[in-house]
Amino acid sequence: MTADLQSWIDRLRRGDALALSRAITTVENHAPGWRDLLKELFPHTGRARIIGLTGAPGAGKSTLVDHLARQYRQENRSVGIIAVDPTSPYTGGAILGDRIRMQQHFSDPGVYIRSMATRGSLGGLAGATADVSAILDASGRDFVMIETVGVGQDEVDVVRLADITVVILVPGMGDDVQSIKAGIMEIADIFVINKSDHPGAERVEREIRALQSLAARADRWTPPIVKTVASEGLGIEDLVAAIRQWETYQQAGNRDRVRQAENWEGRLIAMLRDALLEEALDRMPAGAIAGYAAEIAAHQRDPYTLVEEIVGRLETKS
Amino acid sequence: MTADLQSWIDRLRRGDALALSRAITTVENHAPGWRDLLKELFPHTGRARIIGLTGAPGAGKSTLVDHLARQYRQENRSVGIIAVDPTSPYTGGAILGDRIRMQQHFSDPGVYIRSMATRGSLGGLAGATADVSAILDASGRDFVMIETVGVGQDEVDVVRLADITVVILVPGMGDDVQSIKAGIMEIADIFVINKSDHPGAERVEREIRALQSLAARADRWTPPIVKTVASEGLGIEDLVAAIRQWETYQQAGNRDRVRQAENWEGRLIAMLRDALLEEALDRMPAGAIAGYAAEIAAHQRDPYTLVEEIVGRLETKS
Repeated sequence: MTADLQSWIDRLRRGDALALSRAITTVENHAPGWRDLLKELFPHTGRARIIGLTGAPGAGKSTLVDHLARQYRQENRSVGIIAVDPTSPYTGGAILGDRIRMQQHFSDPGVYIRSMATRGSLGGLAGATADVSAILDASGRDFVMIETVGVGQDEVDVVRLADITVVILVPGMGDDVQSIKAGIMEIADIFVINKSDHPGAERVEREIRALQSLAARADRWTPPIVKTVASEGLGIEDLVAAIRQWETYQQAGNRDRVRQAENWEGRLIAMLRDALLEEALDRMPAGAIAGYAAEIAAHQRDPYTLVEEIVGRLETKS
Repeated sequence: MTADLQSWIDRLRRGDALALSRAITTVENHAPGWRDLLKELFPHTGRARIIGLTGAPGAGKSTLVDHLARQYRQENRSVGIIAVDPTSPYTGGAILGDRIRMQQHFSDPGVYIRSMATRGSLGGLAGATADVSAILDASGRDFVMIETVGVGQDEVDVVRLADITVVILVPGMGDDVQSIKAGIMEIADIFVINKSDHPGAERVEREIRALQSLAARADRWTPPIVKTVASEGLGIEDLVAAIRQWETYQQAGNRDRVRQAENWEGRLIAMLRDALLEEALDRMPAGAIAGYAAEIAAHQRDPYTLVEEIVGRLETKS
């Protein structure tokens, strides 16, 4: 390791926000040295608790995360927040909205907030989020909260990285919207019904309980349902307590280690897929893919045979 | 090519529904011979018009597609429909709902409907949809309609395969929901405001026009806005006319070929990524990934170095 890299990592681990931001930017952009940086940081990861929070747009995720962060700060625990914003794949623009509010709100160095406005990002959204999460972990944050809009496979992949997944629901959403979230429902370790002072909160709770009764097993964790009114800071202690209960449950019988290994299995495959592609593309002349694509569109070449040929050129060194 | 494969392809190309269903199932499941099948079918593709239709849950996509199919049938054109249903990544269950209605509705062999209930499917949702679309194309369908819920990157990838992308909006959706669709908005070649008899249809139209005025360019297609009430079959002719206008526009100056080449570029990269991963995993002993993942979770191994090692073992044959 170079002296520069060593000094950068030392500063990052001492909590230097500038070193931290520079590391995140380097990794997000896959700038030179990004892999070396992650390699050196890896031994310092694994200490933070990674909390994934997901819910429909307008469910009050940011406000809830904001209050959760305050609560942890009162316990003198440091927090990193990764806000994954829905981004246009074409313009790269993100819906930052209240992120700016939060940024202004926290002058506390114990809270670090980073927006990931990077759909279609290098290595995918889930990969980028995992890398940033690892950096925050290595920087000594006690909690890393990953906040994401609960739609689509991407978001499911993002929250699957977490040690604990909190699914945030609100009363009064149409049936259509609820049904879309079928996949998200199943990854919940904890449910939050936010805006629980609104009409229909009981109905949402009944629906969750009905779903749970179908899947209940004595040997499995039944996700608790926590009611909050994040805009007024109500119910946050209950959420903190539910997270603590989950931690206790997970630590028994090494469940947390099993979960981490499962998470790494998916992540490793994704990393491998991206790295193999990168390598294969590096070995091709510039513009090769565009040329092939034009030939395929003109039906002068069949893509299936082409892919077999490219893969067939690779050999394993013994 | 074996005689069996030849006879299967012949039957498929004559429109035999059983041969078609078998081909789709083979490709969806990556069953033995799936790649050979696609290779042999490829020369027979490129004739169908691929229409991607996307919109929020409850926007009335199925009803609209249903009516569009009827309209094309009246012109004696054959139709294949791929209904991409939101699926749970955990149970594999799909929200089939009105798909069953459609299936019962059409006893007409000129309409073939297939649900893709396969999130987390082999080769990804977009890949699976593209393969099925190619089969329907090769089977001689004049139109292939791909219907998908407009949320998430997955869905964007799916509709990007199409020759034409129709984005379906409805009045009265919250601002949050509209804003989520920022990425979807930009891929529209045609906008449909369905349920246009509901209050707020004018507002949706004004919003689209406002967005368009920001991005308007004389040398570019400005997506027309078609108003429909799909439940009553209103506005379908207008949509058919808008699709025809787009076709005329695209055929001028070879724009359709350029678009297809662009689509193939993304698709080829995705195919290559999947094939490289498959190959690399095939070369590893069974259980290798799970073993590595456990070591990483235990911090006995760093994943970044591991991935470099695996990629480094590959050589290119000269």
